[in-house]
Amino acid sequence: MPDKNNNSRAVFFVSNSTGITVETLGRSLLYQFSSTQFESHSLRFIDTTDKAKEAVNTINNLASETGSRPIILSTLVKPELRDILSTVNGLYLDIFDTFISPIEHEIGSEAKLGMGRAHGIIDDDYYTDRMDAVNYSLKTDDGVGAKEYSQADVILTGASRTGKTPTSLYLAMHYGLKAANYPIVDEEIDSYSLPASLKDYKDKVFGLVVTPERLQSIRTKRRPDSQYATLSQCQYEIRQTEAMFQQENIPYFDVSSMSIEEVSSNIMNMMKISSRTFLP
Amino acid sequence: MPDKNNNSRAVFFVSNSTGITVETLGRSLLYQFSSTQFESHSLRFIDTTDKAKEAVNTINNLASETGSRPIILSTLVKPELRDILSTVNGLYLDIFDTFISPIEHEIGSEAKLGMGRAHGIIDDDYYTDRMDAVNYSLKTDDGVGAKEYSQADVILTGASRTGKTPTSLYLAMHYGLKAANYPIVDEEIDSYSLPASLKDYKDKVFGLVVTPERLQSIRTKRRPDSQYATLSQCQYEIRQTEAMFQQENIPYFDVSSMSIEEVSSNIMNMMKISSRTFLP
Repeated sequence: MPDKNNNSRAVFFVSNSTGITVETLGRSLLYQFSSTQFESHSLRFIDTTDKAKEAVNTINNLASETGSRPIILSTLVKPELRDILSTVNGLYLDIFDTFISPIEHEIGSEAKLGMGRAHGIIDDDYYTDRMDAVNYSLKTDDGVGAKEYSQADVILTGASRTGKTPTSLYLAMHYGLKAANYPIVDEEIDSYSLPASLKDYKDKVFGLVVTPERLQSIRTKRRPDSQYATLSQCQYEIRQTEAMFQQENIPYFDVSSMSIEEVSSNIMNMMKISSRTFLP
Repeated sequence: MPDKNNNSRAVFFVSNSTGITVETLGRSLLYQFSSTQFESHSLRFIDTTDKAKEAVNTINNLASETGSRPIILSTLVKPELRDILSTVNGLYLDIFDTFISPIEHEIGSEAKLGMGRAHGIIDDDYYTDRMDAVNYSLKTDDGVGAKEYSQADVILTGASRTGKTPTSLYLAMHYGLKAANYPIVDEEIDSYSLPASLKDYKDKVFGLVVTPERLQSIRTKRRPDSQYATLSQCQYEIRQTEAMFQQENIPYFDVSSMSIEEVSSNIMNMMKISSRTFLP
């Protein structure tokens, strides 16, 4: 007998390209249904009628096996591919289908469906900006490259292992921002004042803290049984860096329960920094 | 007189959180309207009725200034905030409004609107996996850390400046994949065989090439007037690495006109690698 457990449901993300849009939207929608367990499948680069038919078969086979109707979210630009997918045995929702038509009506011009992403010179600038930002973040990771700080959009600081490196890389990759990061270590922890190399760029500095328990857990995974990973050391470093941020009027927050995405966009919001890449 | 140029239109992305979902979807939708120039604005963290009213004012003010109705795309979880936004002078489309109700109907359970992202242990694992992957990619960037290759999900290789580092970081950050990268340099360019440190991990290796012209352009920005950036050197390195990939049966493609997102998801598709982070 197939398992008919109502608390589990297959979800398919179908797209004619990378699937990033539909997967991002899908994750956000499904988070709202916490009592259901979703088993997600990505079908990317479905860009021909043959591949669309194959996708329908894949989905229908799973539907018969599990005895439960899958949910299918798609971003298929070509109407003929959506027509094929719409025959599937499941709940089928296409994002283009839903939103393109009201926007066409509003701006009084038809979508150039099928042309996909814009290419050419503008896109090339967009690519170069992101790459420059990623290179900048790598070059100024972990307190090195301080002579490049005049170019920074933001300089993240805080105790070791508070999430500075992944956040600066995310800001660079996703928003094209030049994000440096500087760890507060050694005697700087006791100084209650901004490290010398940050002083001239105070208006770009943003502080990160986490709870001492969280810091202990992260550090323990990295260096178990070290002094560095003791709760008392973590408590001490967080207390000291927080006191320094307050003393110096550096904006900061606790990132313990935030994703990298949330940390990044909260920083942009608080520092009033705009994306350099969105909608090239 | 306000400018009534029909080829330019303001777009607002409104969300109660990071805005990443609505901005990703919005970018994808607006790419379909290439004859209109969109001027995009992000209003993030709109999570109270006061902020929602303020957002309406901001949008309406721009509408009067420009004499043109803005397009507003939103991901607002709370119905009362959507009600406020829906009074705006423009085309208002909310993603939750559109998709939550058919999904509720399908799975026979109501969305827990307002709870936002799931937290707790699972999320913590999700965060740790991504951080581990980012650290892994940094540790194995540019040919270092070959002794860690047994843990890799994929090892990118190719000539210098073909996009290996940003792609490996994107694969780590977005999909939680352990992506190493190894540049083909010096005598390896002439060898027609896989570098020694990659030989044992051949089934994880993926090659990147770009057109010689593209490589020249990227290298010229980095080291103008160097031998490294000459067209003949770029032609030579691309020809040799491509010959090696063919000789060794290494999958590879030309990434010249692709975004990092496209490169990353194409690699996952061709290598049949699944995301480790999606839907924690």
